[in-house]
Amino acid sequence: MRVGWIGVGVMGRHMCAHLIDRGHTATVFSRTAAKCAPLLDKGAMLATSPREVARASDVVFTVVSTPDDVRRVVLDPADGVFAGLREGGVLVDMTTSTPTLAVELGAEAVRRGFGVLDAPVSGGDVGAKAGTLSIMCGGELTTFETVLPLLECMGRNVRLMGGAGSGQHTKMCNQILAASNMVGVCESLLYAHRAGLDVEAVIKAVGAGAAGSWAMNNLGVKVASRDLAPGFMIEHMVKDLRIALREADAMGLQLQARGR
Amino acid sequence: MRVGWIGVGVMGRHMCAHLIDRGHTATVFSRTAAKCAPLLDKGAMLATSPREVARASDVVFTVVSTPDDVRRVVLDPADGVFAGLREGGVLVDMTTSTPTLAVELGAEAVRRGFGVLDAPVSGGDVGAKAGTLSIMCGGELTTFETVLPLLECMGRNVRLMGGAGSGQHTKMCNQILAASNMVGVCESLLYAHRAGLDVEAVIKAVGAGAAGSWAMNNLGVKVASRDLAPGFMIEHMVKDLRIALREADAMGLQLQARGR
Repeated sequence: MRVGWIGVGVMGRHMCAHLIDRGHTATVFSRTAAKCAPLLDKGAMLATSPREVARASDVVFTVVSTPDDVRRVVLDPADGVFAGLREGGVLVDMTTSTPTLAVELGAEAVRRGFGVLDAPVSGGDVGAKAGTLSIMCGGELTTFETVLPLLECMGRNVRLMGGAGSGQHTKMCNQILAASNMVGVCESLLYAHRAGLDVEAVIKAVGAGAAGSWAMNNLGVKVASRDLAPGFMIEHMVKDLRIALREADAMGLQLQARGR
Repeated sequence: MRVGWIGVGVMGRHMCAHLIDRGHTATVFSRTAAKCAPLLDKGAMLATSPREVARASDVVFTVVSTPDDVRRVVLDPADGVFAGLREGGVLVDMTTSTPTLAVELGAEAVRRGFGVLDAPVSGGDVGAKAGTLSIMCGGELTTFETVLPLLECMGRNVRLMGGAGSGQHTKMCNQILAASNMVGVCESLLYAHRAGLDVEAVIKAVGAGAAGSWAMNNLGVKVASRDLAPGFMIEHMVKDLRIALREADAMGLQLQARGR
């Protein structure tokens, strides 16, 4: 299939590479063209705008930083994806973005005869590289079925959660959990350290039981060994939680950080 | 070995039963004598006070509710465990109690020629029944080695974490994590429900990835199926977190709940 790829950061570069490795033809775009070099070496073609990507592709993937980036890249009247996509073409936005924007893109796509899927991921740079991402999708079943073989090149827990925006809502659930779990890991390990305990022994004592989490058994272990190399940008987590709080507000739901 | 058992609540009754099943002679005490009936049916003897339990035992286990209960049951000059234990006898306090009290009991035991271990557990009523508890111990290595075969009748992740109080400190790390993870589960599932998502599908989408936790994959699944049967008393969690906050305060450590 002819795929388009927009956004080749720490996640996107690996995800696109999996598609090329499975024999798909890729056209790529990045605001920083130099970042595309590793994909061009694999045979991808370089486009000069999101619109040019869309013109050359059946399915266009976007993995950019913020909802504003998604809006610009997709909807810009001169240079956006929707300005170049042929009727029946599909946009898959894998950015962690707002459910509200996903619903808006879904409605706009219906008007123009496109398919759209919101499909944010979980698993970080490690999962992107290994092709083991969890992918949470929102959109029409027919669009999901068209794109599923492509998504399965990048992840192994690929699920359609409901209509447009459902993937983003599910990702919010994921981020609420991930953030809470990390608060627990940090407070627990700080307490252990101050109490004079062997932090690695504490992780072994508590990590396999009812207090265990992926965060403790992976990130906690990194912290304990003083490995502070980042696998995700904290600004992105802050952005994600801001989206979650805004969406919760809109649903009349008061989450902890607001309740205090 | 002649074991003594004080406290036959939702945890203690199962833990003591495992010792009897492995052939140990048990003498038991509860403020509510009727609660001992299932253990007496298994061959345990009933004592009229903690002191009488200690007189009949080489190793006395306590699993009561609060640090004040521990203090009364162990240190009461007329009826306490220490009033009845012979020299060389051992007390194993499996209550989740304060590290400070554990240190105090350790010092008192040295003066009197007893061994003492603080050995709180994780795994809930299910783990107590199945004999799969995690047991976090603080005390002298020789005492730990004496008691280890008994502890291994009740649990499978039994660790000596350091001197007196280290088991309780490790349990605090466990409870800080468990509570944070549960906040994450509740907020995440509330968000999912309000957003109109299928809550069980969300758990499948996020529970196996980087946001996963024992709490989500066990308690979250229970919540999603509307199974609200309790496995632990919320008052006990509140007590545990109060201890954690007091101990953190004493260590000059500001945890989240205090920082707000």
